[in-house]
Amino acid sequence: MLAIDLGGTQIRAAYVAPDLSVSLRRAIPTNATDGPRAAIDRMRELAGGVLHDAADAGLPHPCGVGVSAPGPLDPWQGVLIGPPNLPGWVDVPLVEWIQPRFGLPTFLERDTNVAVMAEWRSGAAAGARDAIYITVSTGLGGGIITGGRPLIGLDDTAGEIGHMTVDLDGPLCGDGMRGHAEAIGSGAAIAREGRSSLERGEGPVLATLAAAGRPVDAELVAEAADAGDTACQAIYARAFEAIGALCASLVMALNPELIVIGGSIADHRPGLLAEVRAQIDRRAFPAPARRVRIVPPRFGDDVSLIGSLPIVNERMNDPAFRPVPPLAAAVAGRRPAWRNPE
Amino acid sequence: MLAIDLGGTQIRAAYVAPDLSVSLRRAIPTNATDGPRAAIDRMRELAGGVLHDAADAGLPHPCGVGVSAPGPLDPWQGVLIGPPNLPGWVDVPLVEWIQPRFGLPTFLERDTNVAVMAEWRSGAAAGARDAIYITVSTGLGGGIITGGRPLIGLDDTAGEIGHMTVDLDGPLCGDGMRGHAEAIGSGAAIAREGRSSLERGEGPVLATLAAAGRPVDAELVAEAADAGDTACQAIYARAFEAIGALCASLVMALNPELIVIGGSIADHRPGLLAEVRAQIDRRAFPAPARRVRIVPPRFGDDVSLIGSLPIVNERMNDPAFRPVPPLAAAVAGRRPAWRNPE
Repeated sequence: MLAIDLGGTQIRAAYVAPDLSVSLRRAIPTNATDGPRAAIDRMRELAGGVLHDAADAGLPHPCGVGVSAPGPLDPWQGVLIGPPNLPGWVDVPLVEWIQPRFGLPTFLERDTNVAVMAEWRSGAAAGARDAIYITVSTGLGGGIITGGRPLIGLDDTAGEIGHMTVDLDGPLCGDGMRGHAEAIGSGAAIAREGRSSLERGEGPVLATLAAAGRPVDAELVAEAADAGDTACQAIYARAFEAIGALCASLVMALNPELIVIGGSIADHRPGLLAEVRAQIDRRAFPAPARRVRIVPPRFGDDVSLIGSLPIVNERMNDPAFRPVPPLAAAVAGRRPAWRNPE
Repeated sequence: MLAIDLGGTQIRAAYVAPDLSVSLRRAIPTNATDGPRAAIDRMRELAGGVLHDAADAGLPHPCGVGVSAPGPLDPWQGVLIGPPNLPGWVDVPLVEWIQPRFGLPTFLERDTNVAVMAEWRSGAAAGARDAIYITVSTGLGGGIITGGRPLIGLDDTAGEIGHMTVDLDGPLCGDGMRGHAEAIGSGAAIAREGRSSLERGEGPVLATLAAAGRPVDAELVAEAADAGDTACQAIYARAFEAIGALCASLVMALNPELIVIGGSIADHRPGLLAEVRAQIDRRAFPAPARRVRIVPPRFGDDVSLIGSLPIVNERMNDPAFRPVPPLAAAVAGRRPAWRNPE
C-alpha cells in the first residue's frame, strides 16, 4: 500500500507491505503557506516518486492509498475540514485531488486514528478490548478503543483528548480555548512557557542557550531542564502533571486496559510515563488505576504510515466509503450534519 | 420485576411492569451506620413488602430482582466493593444475601448505569448511538453509550465521569483527590462552599437562613442565591462552569449525539442546561459542539428503578451472569483482576 502522512511540518510518503514493513520513505516540508493546491501537488509528486521506486524495486503495485492528516476531517468524503495547524485549509477535497493521479482507491483518516489503529492492530495495544493511544508532540492527540472497537463518535470527531479541559482557569490553547490539556502538556505549550520565562527574566540556562541563537522550543527547554534550570524543570513538571491528569480522567471515564503514550516528547523524556503513572494513582480510583498499564508504543515515527494499511484494507469493500469522485454524490447519505451549519 | 435502589440516604423498592410503569413504591432511610447486614435485612423486608402488595393486587409474580447501588461494585459477582458514600461497606456480597430471600434471579448494577439504561432504552436518549447521561445531585455521576452500546470498560468501572479532573489545583473531592468535577459541581461541593462562605463572613442571605436553624446544604445555597446573595450565586456559577467543562471534555472525547442531564440539582436549577450549552460552545470544537444536544431526562426519581428492567431481562440468559450462590465458584472466570490486589 502507498501511505501518505500530511503533517503540519512535513509530508511523508512510503510503501507499506502486508507484513507492515515500511520502505521507500520520502519526505518534504509541508510549506502550507502557498495554499492547499500547491501543497497537494507536491504531495502527489512525492507519492508518485514512491510508486516509481516501488516499480523499480519489483514490488507489487499497491492496492490502495491511505492518507493520514490532522483533524477535523471527513473520512467518508475524504475532505479536510480546517485543521488548526494548517491555516487556510478549509474544506479541502483531498481525496478528490489525489485519487485520479494514481487511479487507486484512496482513503483519508485522522492521523491519531491511524496511529491508534497501528498500535491496536499490531503494536503495543494488540488484542486489547479497551485501550487509549496518546501522542505528545507539538500537539496532544489520541485515539480510543473501547469494547474492542475504535470509538469514533457520531461524526468521527471523537478522540480529541488533547482538547479536554483539565484546568478550568488554565492557559489558552492554540484554538483560543482555555485550560485544555494541550495548552499545558504539548510541545507548543512548553515552548510558549519557555519564552514566557525568558520574558520574566527567569530560566538562566535557557537564556544562555537562547542567546547562542537556538530557537526556544520544547527541545531547548528540555535541554535547559536537564542542565539544572529550575524554571524549565517546573515547566516540564506542570506539563507532565497535565498529561497525567488527562490520563487519570480517561481512566475514570473509560476503565482501559492500557494507555500507549508516544510522540516526540514522550519518546525523548522517559520520565513522562512514570509521572503519568503517579498522577493516575493520585487522581483516579484505585480499582481502575491499578488495572491500567502505561506503555510506550511499538512503532515510532512510522506509526501514521503503518496504520493506514488496516484502514485501507478494511474500507476497500465497505459501502460507507466510496472514494470515487464525484464523492459528494456517492456518500451523500453519510454526509455529517455538522458540515452543513444551520 | 422487583426493583430495589440502594442510595446513600434512602432504600427504595417498587414493582416495575413490562410497560415501565412503576407501582407499589416503598422507601426507608438507609441508615448505613449499623452496618451492611442490618441495612440489607431492612432492604429484604422492604422488598418483601412490595412483593406482598403485588400478590394482593393480583399482579404477575416478578421474574427477577434488579438492584441498583452506588459504585464501585462487581456486577458479575453481585458484590459492593466499597462505595464512598456507604462508609464501611467493603466487599459486601449483596446478591448472595438478597437472592435466597425471594428465590428469584437477582442482578446488581451501578445506579448510574441503571439510570443511563432507562434513559437510553426508553427515555430521552432512546435510539441514540452515542449518548451520555449525567446526574447532578449530592454526587456527580453518569454513564456512557458509544457506538450503540453501553461503555463499561475492562471491569465495568467506566463512566465515573464525576471524578474526571477539570481543575488541576482545584478543591479536594470526597475521595480525597484534587480537582474532580464532583469536587466543584456536586451538591456536596456546593454545600461545602456555602459553609466556607459563612466561615469567611460572606453570604449575608445564607447567614440569615442558616441562623434560622436550616442546615447549610445545596438547596439552602440555591435559595440564598435566588434571594440575591452574590457569594451563593458565585458558588453556583462555579459549579455550573465545572459541570459544563466536564461536558465539553466529554464532547471532545466522545462526539456524542446528546447529553442527558438529570439529578436533583439539575431538576431544580433550570439554568444548568443553558450554562452547560454555553461552556461547551466555549470549550469544545465547533463541529462536535454544534452536533450535541443537551436535554433533560424523561424519567425523574424513578430512573434507577426503571432501568433495572432491561438489565434484568438481558442478563437473565447471559452466561456471564450466573447469580446463583455460591457466586464465587459460578463466575470465577469473570472475577475482575482488580479485586485481587497484587
